[in-house]
Amino acid sequence: MNRITSLFDIQYPIIQAGMVWCSGWKLASAVSNAGGLGIIGAGSMYPDVLRQHIRQCREATSRPFAVNVPLLYPNVEEIMNILVEEQVGIVFTSAGNPATWTSFLKEKGIIVVHVIANTKFALKAESCGVDAVVAEGFEAGGHNGREETTTMCLIPMITAQLQIPVIAAGGIGSGRAMLAAIALGADAVQVGSAFAVAEESSAHVNFKRRIVDAVEGDTKLRMKKLVPVRLLNNPFDDAVAQAEAEGANTERMVQLLGRARAKSGMFEGDMEEGELEIGQVSAMLSDIKPAAVILKEIWEEFMVSRDRIARLEF
Amino acid sequence: MNRITSLFDIQYPIIQAGMVWCSGWKLASAVSNAGGLGIIGAGSMYPDVLRQHIRQCREATSRPFAVNVPLLYPNVEEIMNILVEEQVGIVFTSAGNPATWTSFLKEKGIIVVHVIANTKFALKAESCGVDAVVAEGFEAGGHNGREETTTMCLIPMITAQLQIPVIAAGGIGSGRAMLAAIALGADAVQVGSAFAVAEESSAHVNFKRRIVDAVEGDTKLRMKKLVPVRLLNNPFDDAVAQAEAEGANTERMVQLLGRARAKSGMFEGDMEEGELEIGQVSAMLSDIKPAAVILKEIWEEFMVSRDRIARLEF
Repeated sequence: MNRITSLFDIQYPIIQAGMVWCSGWKLASAVSNAGGLGIIGAGSMYPDVLRQHIRQCREATSRPFAVNVPLLYPNVEEIMNILVEEQVGIVFTSAGNPATWTSFLKEKGIIVVHVIANTKFALKAESCGVDAVVAEGFEAGGHNGREETTTMCLIPMITAQLQIPVIAAGGIGSGRAMLAAIALGADAVQVGSAFAVAEESSAHVNFKRRIVDAVEGDTKLRMKKLVPVRLLNNPFDDAVAQAEAEGANTERMVQLLGRARAKSGMFEGDMEEGELEIGQVSAMLSDIKPAAVILKEIWEEFMVSRDRIARLEF
Repeated sequence: MNRITSLFDIQYPIIQAGMVWCSGWKLASAVSNAGGLGIIGAGSMYPDVLRQHIRQCREATSRPFAVNVPLLYPNVEEIMNILVEEQVGIVFTSAGNPATWTSFLKEKGIIVVHVIANTKFALKAESCGVDAVVAEGFEAGGHNGREETTTMCLIPMITAQLQIPVIAAGGIGSGRAMLAAIALGADAVQVGSAFAVAEESSAHVNFKRRIVDAVEGDTKLRMKKLVPVRLLNNPFDDAVAQAEAEGANTERMVQLLGRARAKSGMFEGDMEEGELEIGQVSAMLSDIKPAAVILKEIWEEFMVSRDRIARLEF
């Protein structure tokens, strides 16, 4: 049996990434109903909004779903209490220290998964008692590790050192990439960008169209003097690239970033001045489709690719 | 049958990368004798030195081997004539336009492979008549593509568009990474860093020891204002990082790089001021071993991993 499908009680070892401005209850419930694990991304929600999303997700699916909580979130204590009150069964924590909240959640019987980008934090998360980790490579969208280790290099290192299950993330939007991740030793995959363009994603349609139009080289890891983040090219990204090439310091980068750019770009559709977070795999995406179709296509290609590999003669 | 083992008439679809200061006749012949394809890296050789390496390689192995020629090499015409005179059967070209030399080599009956890092140049190489391409991801050592596309994202895009065989490179130093590359659609793999630390590699022992000591985050893609190159951290790399953070312009970077730093670092063993080119996968390497052992371990892990994947139940 697969350790991740057993842990979450789901059909396929495919997890939809919790993504700011993309993954509300509609996307999470669609993925869970299709047999994967849907995740509500709390990072872009006020606490009362999150509570509504959890309730609506539970109405929309009887299957397990999760909530992702960036631990640097200002209202994190309020969020954690809501997760307990609303009896959320699975919590993914990210962008923070797993020592802070893991035991609190575990004591309430909640399954805890922590997102990491290097072996050091993977081992730390494991020692804090998490049930699994998401290991996220350089090619992933949004915030990212400073080591810049790609999925190809990260997964074998992490799986060689951890006892708990490892969910691979970064660059996985197809069944053959899923097979590659499993070949590298992962137990399951987390898929972000491919679900960001799902019909049920709350991303603005302008953003979804920009993603499916993206080509190679259109995303770059920026803001390395703040927190590294993978951005899709647009005039705002050009300004960031220009400032970085000129050696702009932290203060200037904070000023350039300003406030609420992620919302204006990804949720409100400002393709010029918004901050557009997406993975490298966007260059391979070509359609806006229902989440269930995306999941089914990944799974079927995974199974077909596995058969192909098994039959190869050397 | 595998298209790459057929094309080169070799036993295993494992190619040793042509690497400056590492891959002379000793390494190339050891890899070819072990059933892979050994490559002499002409990039760090004067023409008469290259001729000697070709002759010594032929004495050391009766199996096929290749020569890698960076097309920006100043003596490229002289090199090409030597390859023909010495009846080299397989040539890998890189760092330049495949339109310039492919037909010259093909007319002499030479198999030609071109190294690329994006779909555009892959299609161009195919249209120029090359027999195969090496598709090299962001995690690879040495000079690298501007798109920063990782192996996980690059290989499915390239294989979806090309008819000719694709050799995956970047992040591949183990059998499970090889299986991942094959899962992504590659016909074969090119292995650099893992062979750079082979006993037969001409890299200085100081450099080999530094590679096996490398940890996550120790390599970074630098010199993006010149030609991007993945460097291993040392005082010289720190100086480069500092200059780049300060917004140093092209002229200052050229001055900082100076001359012959790659030779002094990789061949002469200056770990302080030398330029050390190696891949991200160096973080996973732990021993200096004979090339035949490295190849055998990769192949055996590949086969074992393939069996494991085939037996997985979901």
